[in-house]
Amino acid sequence: MNQFGRYFRVTIFGESHGEALGVIVDGIKAGMSLTLGDFEGDLARRRSGAPGTTPRHESDLPQIVSGVFEGHTTGAPVAILFRNENTRSSDYAKLIDHPRPSHADWVAAQRFEQYNDPRGGGHFSGRVTLGLVAAGVIAKKQSSSISISSEIIELGGSRNTTDFEQIISNAVRDGDSVGGVIECRADGVPIGLGEPFFDSVESIVSHLMFSIPGVKGVEFGSGFAGARLRGSENNDPIIDARGTTATNNSGGINGGLTNGNQIVVRIAVKPTASIERTQQTFNFANRRIEPLTIGGRHDACIALRAAVVAEAALAIALTDLLQHTQK
Amino acid sequence: MNQFGRYFRVTIFGESHGEALGVIVDGIKAGMSLTLGDFEGDLARRRSGAPGTTPRHESDLPQIVSGVFEGHTTGAPVAILFRNENTRSSDYAKLIDHPRPSHADWVAAQRFEQYNDPRGGGHFSGRVTLGLVAAGVIAKKQSSSISISSEIIELGGSRNTTDFEQIISNAVRDGDSVGGVIECRADGVPIGLGEPFFDSVESIVSHLMFSIPGVKGVEFGSGFAGARLRGSENNDPIIDARGTTATNNSGGINGGLTNGNQIVVRIAVKPTASIERTQQTFNFANRRIEPLTIGGRHDACIALRAAVVAEAALAIALTDLLQHTQK
Amino acid sequence: MNQFGRYFRVTIFGESHGEALGVIVDGIKAGMSLTLGDFEGDLARRRSGAPGTTPRHESDLPQIVSGVFEGHTTGAPVAILFRNENTRSSDYAKLIDHPRPSHADWVAAQRFEQYNDPRGGGHFSGRVTLGLVAAGVIAKKQSSSISISSEIIELGGSRNTTDFEQIISNAVRDGDSVGGVIECRADGVPIGLGEPFFDSVESIVSHLMFSIPGVKGVEFGSGFAGARLRGSENNDPIIDARGTTATNNSGGINGGLTNGNQIVVRIAVKPTASIERTQQTFNFANRRIEPLTIGGRHDACIALRAAVVAEAALAIALTDLLQHTQK
Amino acid sequence: MNQFGRYFRVTIFGESHGEALGVIVDGIKAGMSLTLGDFEGDLARRRSGAPGTTPRHESDLPQIVSGVFEGHTTGAPVAILFRNENTRSSDYAKLIDHPRPSHADWVAAQRFEQYNDPRGGGHFSGRVTLGLVAAGVIAKKQSSSISISSEIIELGGSRNTTDFEQIISNAVRDGDSVGGVIECRADGVPIGLGEPFFDSVESIVSHLMFSIPGVKGVEFGSGFAGARLRGSENNDPIIDARGTTATNNSGGINGGLTNGNQIVVRIAVKPTASIERTQQTFNFANRRIEPLTIGGRHDACIALRAAVVAEAALAIALTDLLQHTQK
Repeated sequence: MNQFGRYFRVTIFGESHGEALGVIVDGIKAGMSLTLGDFEGDLARRRSGAPGTTPRHESDLPQIVSGVFEGHTTGAPVAILFRNENTRSSDYAKLIDHPRPSHADWVAAQRFEQYNDPRGGGHFSGRVTLGLVAAGVIAKKQSSSISISSEIIELGGSRNTTDFEQIISNAVRDGDSVGGVIECRADGVPIGLGEPFFDSVESIVSHLMFSIPGVKGVEFGSGFAGARLRGSENNDPIIDARGTTATNNSGGINGGLTNGNQIVVRIAVKPTASIERTQQTFNFANRRIEPLTIGGRHDACIALRAAVVAEAALAIALTDLLQHTQK
Repeated sequence: MNQFGRYFRVTIFGESHGEALGVIVDGIKAGMSLTLGDFEGDLARRRSGAPGTTPRHESDLPQIVSGVFEGHTTGAPVAILFRNENTRSSDYAKLIDHPRPSHADWVAAQRFEQYNDPRGGGHFSGRVTLGLVAAGVIAKKQSSSISISSEIIELGGSRNTTDFEQIISNAVRDGDSVGGVIECRADGVPIGLGEPFFDSVESIVSHLMFSIPGVKGVEFGSGFAGARLRGSENNDPIIDARGTTATNNSGGINGGLTNGNQIVVRIAVKPTASIERTQQTFNFANRRIEPLTIGGRHDACIALRAAVVAEAALAIALTDLLQHTQK
Repeated sequence: MNQFGRYFRVTIFGESHGEALGVIVDGIKAGMSLTLGDFEGDLARRRSGAPGTTPRHESDLPQIVSGVFEGHTTGAPVAILFRNENTRSSDYAKLIDHPRPSHADWVAAQRFEQYNDPRGGGHFSGRVTLGLVAAGVIAKKQSSSISISSEIIELGGSRNTTDFEQIISNAVRDGDSVGGVIECRADGVPIGLGEPFFDSVESIVSHLMFSIPGVKGVEFGSGFAGARLRGSENNDPIIDARGTTATNNSGGINGGLTNGNQIVVRIAVKPTASIERTQQTFNFANRRIEPLTIGGRHDACIALRAAVVAEAALAIALTDLLQHTQK
Repeated sequence: MNQFGRYFRVTIFGESHGEALGVIVDGIKAGMSLTLGDFEGDLARRRSGAPGTTPRHESDLPQIVSGVFEGHTTGAPVAILFRNENTRSSDYAKLIDHPRPSHADWVAAQRFEQYNDPRGGGHFSGRVTLGLVAAGVIAKKQSSSISISSEIIELGGSRNTTDFEQIISNAVRDGDSVGGVIECRADGVPIGLGEPFFDSVESIVSHLMFSIPGVKGVEFGSGFAGARLRGSENNDPIIDARGTTATNNSGGINGGLTNGNQIVVRIAVKPTASIERTQQTFNFANRRIEPLTIGGRHDACIALRAAVVAEAALAIALTDLLQHTQK
């Protein structure tokens, strides 16, 4: 289902080239000020324009349809709509017979029996994350005691940020794409959020992180590197009565519950599957292996625009946890 | 909530040193043969005994309390109980004042206001995964078309399996612990399971994997390594009408849906937090930093016993997806 | 949460006098034809106009925003929007100090701390059932093997349909309102839908029926009258191998599961709380009991327009049950 | 699924003649005292013995398996087990071919393809409500500010309590059964619980009430009788700043939310389907209509024992609402 959250519930809808896409957010407290201006910052961070991002430009102006009265939330669901404007569906005509490698084209056709909207990936498009970012803005406002930040810590295999620009321009030059790793941090998270086992903070946060198109890995604290350490190296000594720890290899989570330290989560974003460079794929019409050159407009590195989406995911997950942690 | 699954629903309960622990599994089809013998194999794999596992030995005999009549499932919930036998609670007396670093002790005390059962971690204990393994056995039977396997591919930082035994014995010798990486694979998974976005296969599987104590990272296909590749290297070319791909960097999942190829998921298991080696922690009673030497009985490497738990998690997740994928 | 359904999931949003209201329906099978024409019939039945219905006239034209491509459902969520046009908010100014008896005004103000949209009841308005009717249309199409009908069997205390017109006009004349009882029937329902206990068909259907504003009672089969019979009178003898019963006092449901006979459910709809006739209420501003005469525009009998809403509720509930009944 | 509740979650399991049945309750606050003695009162009220109740006597001693440490809840799930002792399965042998009219026998056989446990109705048995009563005890303790009571207000068609004893003994004498109406009341309920639409208090409470075997009708406040009144008669005037109303035809609920007044809900309990008196049914073996005389042991009036179950249902529903009402 296109929905996340038990108490702070986010429902997304829409397609890349449909009339509009959007989000419904339920479980918002009444009386919170909410205006279009609140969305500008994060939507701008998600918007394309920088080198390595798609030449498809959308104004992405949100329209608040419900749940706000005289500038404040009413406690009813907030519906936000984004009209699609700059659509060029013609680009996608040939993709029905030529599924793009590592894209949803082929499975979507199987699953939805050719009825999936093929234009720009339809509902599978990363463009649908617009609603996620809008919901993230509301989550950040509702959980204002928590501050969330993100950083691209690895791009095209390099952890040296000064290389990033060059790595991107090389990828663009080669009609290719690169992946990256985004680190998100949350400060000011209360102690004891989450549940042991099935609703651990890692479970809830990863559930949402893996719903971002292109994310293929999620780790907390020392993560995969921690699995190479010994317990004596990886354990975080508690140094005061507030539970502060000398190190944070646990990423702020023990036994599935927040421990009051900074939450640290990293996500692996794969290189964009859409590349201009010629690839081989199967033509379902003539049943031959054929070269495919993808036109259309796409990002050489989705990690660039995914950072703010990941922040939104973390904000939404923590806001839901804040509400469904048993008192 | 101590529960996972929308259609194939698993509910766990119990504590490490309580009277019993167990699991309720709902959504089981009627008429499936189910006997105690079905559980033996996987429970044996989870049981301690091998070098590096806890000296606490439990027979772990399951007791089927409901949902089975004359050797077949009835369609009603199956309740399975495991009695705790070999408990030595005295070991844990001092942990209330001396929270074990990187353990749930401290957060549990905060969250449950000192009422958490402190014996062996109470409900936070890895022992509660017994119920998960039992549910996994049922999931594997119900989804018999899917075959699931697992392998420890990294231990204490080494990917050379011939080193594993030595790495473990060194850790035990040093009163320390090591972590590892487990890879799970699922073959025979139908095409099109999952949903784009919030119920992506990665979301559902990771949700459950991260509920296994000690898991701090989850990746699919090429995962974090894939984020270092270019699109032209990471993409999986489709080579036939069945959607078979030349490579499987996607780990069998595109756009959140299964693509018919093998599902590959890896989990990072941290080194056991409980180590005999002396650590520093905060004594909440006298408010001093004090050395802590953990008695009790524990594993030098939980990854050894977690492999079958991870298989269970994957089996449960896929069984639930098999049922809640819209037709 | 403003949502119903596990597999066939309906999410509503909007306010009586907001910009728009609507519904998101998820879990729709791909490839079902869906056009605006499909909605006309049921929306017309819900629309006002007949004697006893509000003089507020809305065209209620649905706008399909997503989930449909070239006239067929894609398998992605269908979002439907209705613009509010004929709003006269001024009518509602004084209701903040003068809560209407038996209305949501007072509790909404308490719950949402004065932030609830007071115009026409805001999100509490019966107008929000527009989305429910639209979702019902989709449910009826998806569960086309089931045929659903409804009838007003009691109005203002009379079961004689020939009296209904007079009863309504008298109520209007007196500036008063009347209630009624609606009976819904479903034919062609497969055997075995539902679950014993918490997801009994009665549980699921009543859950949705009681979400229709004004419904204060729900009964199945012989219902309250059956409680006055003896077992020998109320039991339904099985007369053939298909399980057909001589009588249908069970309303098509035994042990919480459908038995293959017609499902019969009746709902009690209270008389409209909004009446022109002067009532006493408490003025929160001056803390006096004061007479209240409600202007605005309302129905003298909401049962008239609720019948199609009840059909929608039954269709949605059965469609969800069709999908979440374990196979 | 055999489960109710979002925050205060109740999961039941077991069969009438299986080894044991029970309940898991999750979402219990930590530190609440809980002992076996807490269950005695309500379990005794549910137990048989009075005229008109089954001669099958069970001690119904609860066993607390988990979630309680040193007499207090730990915050982990509480599992409670009841062993079945006094089982006489032989009674039910012939019911496979001879489904009891208005019983689950026939639909259960269809749904679960003959694998349903036929002994005493298996999981469909009213005996499974034992777990519901136990969960109700915990709910009442957790929501101690709310006081819940119940009363049988109608039996065999009479509202004169002095007739009840005679009505029962006549039914027993005739080998027949009678139904009844139970009224439950809750005092001390905070204002504003519930949600407009799908999680209205009526929706949540009726969902649970209709999961009690034999319940075929639910009404709140004036209910079906209110549908015969005019708005001017049915409306509840607000008489003070606390929202107190002069009458309570709304049953304490407006717009789906609690209004602070007493919650009043009535349920119609059908006459026991199992009667000794000879009935006609279909013999699936020889495909003939045959007379059926039901042996076994049953209640002449399940309403007698259902009152405490209905109280439990109301307590569970309100406890869940107390936790999942958005703050």
